[in-house]
Amino acid sequence: MDQVRVELGERSYSIHIGAGLLAKLPSLLPALSGKQVMVVTNTTIAPLYLEQVEEALSGFQLDHVILPDGEQYKTLGVLDQIFSRLLERRHNRTTTLIALGGGVIGDMTGFAAAAYQRGVDFVQIPTTLLSQVDSSVGGKTGVNHPLGKNMIGAFHQPRVVIADLATLLTLPDRELSAGLAEIIKYGLIWDAEFFEWLEHCMDRLVARDIDALAHAVRRSCEIKAEVVGKDERESSLRAILNLGHTFGHAIETAQGYGRWLHGEAVGAGMVMATELSIREGMLPESMRERVTDLSIRAGLPVKGPADMDEAIYRKLMAVDKKVLDDKIRLVLLEKLGKAVVTTNFDPTNFSATLRACT
Amino acid sequence: MDQVRVELGERSYSIHIGAGLLAKLPSLLPALSGKQVMVVTNTTIAPLYLEQVEEALSGFQLDHVILPDGEQYKTLGVLDQIFSRLLERRHNRTTTLIALGGGVIGDMTGFAAAAYQRGVDFVQIPTTLLSQVDSSVGGKTGVNHPLGKNMIGAFHQPRVVIADLATLLTLPDRELSAGLAEIIKYGLIWDAEFFEWLEHCMDRLVARDIDALAHAVRRSCEIKAEVVGKDERESSLRAILNLGHTFGHAIETAQGYGRWLHGEAVGAGMVMATELSIREGMLPESMRERVTDLSIRAGLPVKGPADMDEAIYRKLMAVDKKVLDDKIRLVLLEKLGKAVVTTNFDPTNFSATLRACT
Repeated sequence: MDQVRVELGERSYSIHIGAGLLAKLPSLLPALSGKQVMVVTNTTIAPLYLEQVEEALSGFQLDHVILPDGEQYKTLGVLDQIFSRLLERRHNRTTTLIALGGGVIGDMTGFAAAAYQRGVDFVQIPTTLLSQVDSSVGGKTGVNHPLGKNMIGAFHQPRVVIADLATLLTLPDRELSAGLAEIIKYGLIWDAEFFEWLEHCMDRLVARDIDALAHAVRRSCEIKAEVVGKDERESSLRAILNLGHTFGHAIETAQGYGRWLHGEAVGAGMVMATELSIREGMLPESMRERVTDLSIRAGLPVKGPADMDEAIYRKLMAVDKKVLDDKIRLVLLEKLGKAVVTTNFDPTNFSATLRACT
Repeated sequence: MDQVRVELGERSYSIHIGAGLLAKLPSLLPALSGKQVMVVTNTTIAPLYLEQVEEALSGFQLDHVILPDGEQYKTLGVLDQIFSRLLERRHNRTTTLIALGGGVIGDMTGFAAAAYQRGVDFVQIPTTLLSQVDSSVGGKTGVNHPLGKNMIGAFHQPRVVIADLATLLTLPDRELSAGLAEIIKYGLIWDAEFFEWLEHCMDRLVARDIDALAHAVRRSCEIKAEVVGKDERESSLRAILNLGHTFGHAIETAQGYGRWLHGEAVGAGMVMATELSIREGMLPESMRERVTDLSIRAGLPVKGPADMDEAIYRKLMAVDKKVLDDKIRLVLLEKLGKAVVTTNFDPTNFSATLRACT
C-alpha cells in the first residue's frame, strides 16, 4: 500500500492507495470525532460497495443516502437531500460524512460537510480513476449552477482519502479514459519524466495493470499535493492545475452536464491549450503530436464538439471562475513539465486554435 | 463615530457605529478587491436605503438583488436567487457582496459570499438593532432548513461592518425590542455593570435616544468581539452567546419561521434559562424579577407560546446544533455576568421551568 501526505498544517491528511483497501477500512480511518456516520453514494456505486463499507463501520450510528448518478445531479437541490437525511436522522456536529463514489459524490459530500451545521468532518472513498487523482486532493468542493460549473462551493479538506484501486476494475472504459486525462495533465504541467513514463506505460494503464495504476495514481496525487500545499486557496500557483479546464468547462456547459464526461472535456481542452502554446511560440511543434498521440492511446477525444464555434467558446469562457476583470485567463505550457497562467495571448492564435481543434 | 475592532488575525475587521454613516459610505469602505459590487437587500429596506447606498458606490459595476422580507425566506431556494443574479451579471471572484438589511439578509448574503466561487468578500450594513449587535460580529452565516434553524452555513467574516444608528429610527417597535433582547443577553452572560446600565437606561433605549443606542450597540459589539476573538469556531467559550437560544429556536421552529421574531423567542428563552439557573441553585432568586422586569420594559415576551408543551420543547431542542451525543446542552447563569454551558441539570427542574414559563 502507498501513502501520500497532503501537507496543509492542521488540515493535513493522508491518501491511502492500494488494491483491496475497502476490506481494511477500519484500520485506515482516523479516530472519528463522534459516533455518527453518513455514507453518501449513488445508485451505480451502492450495489457494488455500500454493503462492504457499512459492514466495516458496524460500530457507528450508520446511515446512508443514495443519490442519482451523474454530473447533471450535482445541484443545490440534490445537495438538500443530503441535508434532509442528516437532519431526519439527527446527525449532530460530530458526525462524519463518507463520500463513496466518483468526483460528483466527492464534491457534493464535501460541500455538504462544509456547510452542514457550518462544518463537519468528511472522508473520501473515491471509486473512479478521475476522483482518485483529482478531487481527492485539495479540498475543492461544490455544486454546479445552471449558469456555470462549480460556481457554488467551499474549500473543505477531508480527514483521510482511501483510494482502493480494485474499484477501478469495474469502471467503464470511458471513465477510465477520463481519469487518464488528468494524469496526462500532471505530466504536462509539472513532471516531464512522468509524461515520458506515461508514453511508455499507457497501454498497461488502459489494460488496468494494478502496478501501473498504483504508480500513476501515487505520482498524480504527489504532484497535486505539492501544488496545493504551496497554494491551498488558489491565489496563484494552484491555477496551473486547470490546464485544459477553461476550454473543457465551456464544452461541458455547452453540451449540458453529463453528455461529455469532465475528463473527456478536459482532455480535448488540454489539446487546445497545447495547440495555443505552440502557436504562441512557447512550446515546440513536436508536442502537438506527442499530446495528441498519448490522448488517443488513452481513449480520449482530441477535438471539441463539432457544433461549437468560436463565439460559443468565448461567451462560456468569459463566465469561468478564472476570469478576472473580463480577461480570459488560460493555463499554457512553457515547456513539457512547466505551466504558466496568463491573460496575455494573441487573439488571432486563440481563434486559430479553436478552429484547429473543432 | 465609534469603532469596534474584531480581532481575528488576518480576518480581523472593524465595526463602525454612528448616526448618518450611510452618507459617509465611500470613506468607510476598505479598498475592495475588484470593480464589481452586488447589493443584497429586501423589499422593506430597498425603498428606504438602496438608492443612497448605490449613489455612494457609483464608481463600481453595481448590481442589486431584492429578496422577499422575512425569516421564512432564509432558505437554500432564495439563496439560489443571489447566485443566479451574480452569474447573470457575470460577477467574478473579486466581487464584493453588500448585505443591506437585518439579520436574515446578513446571514444569507454572508453565506452566499462564502459559497460563491468558493468564497468572495462581503460587507455588512445592518439596519436593525438585532443585526447591529448580533450577526454583525462573528461571521456566522447560513440559511434555515425545514427541519432546523441555521442548519446550513459557513463561518465567513465580513471585510467591514457599518452600523448606521439612523436606520433604527424607522424600525418597527417589535424589532427594536427583539434587538434589546440580545443586548440584555450580553449583560447577563458577561458584564454585570452593563446589565445595571440597561436597568438604568432601558427607557431611553426604547425611546430611541441615539446616545443611549450608541453605547448599547458599542458595548454589545465589544463583548461579542471579545468572546468570538477567543473562540471563532465555537469549540467552547463562544457557546455562551447562545443563552436563551436553544429554548428560542424551539419556539421559532414550532411556531413556523417568521411568526415570533428571533429576538422575541430569545427573550422568552433567556427568561427560561434564568428560571432554570435559579431552580438549579446557581443564581439568586432576585434575578427572576430583575430579568423579567427588564424584559417587560424592553417590550419582550417573558413566556413561551401557550400552545407549546414540554414534549414539543424536548423534541425540537434535541435536534439543535448544540446537542452532542443526545444530551441537550444549555447555557445557564452562574451569577449575573457569568454564563456556563452544561448538559448537567436536573430533568425535574427542566420540566418545572417549561411549565413555569408557558
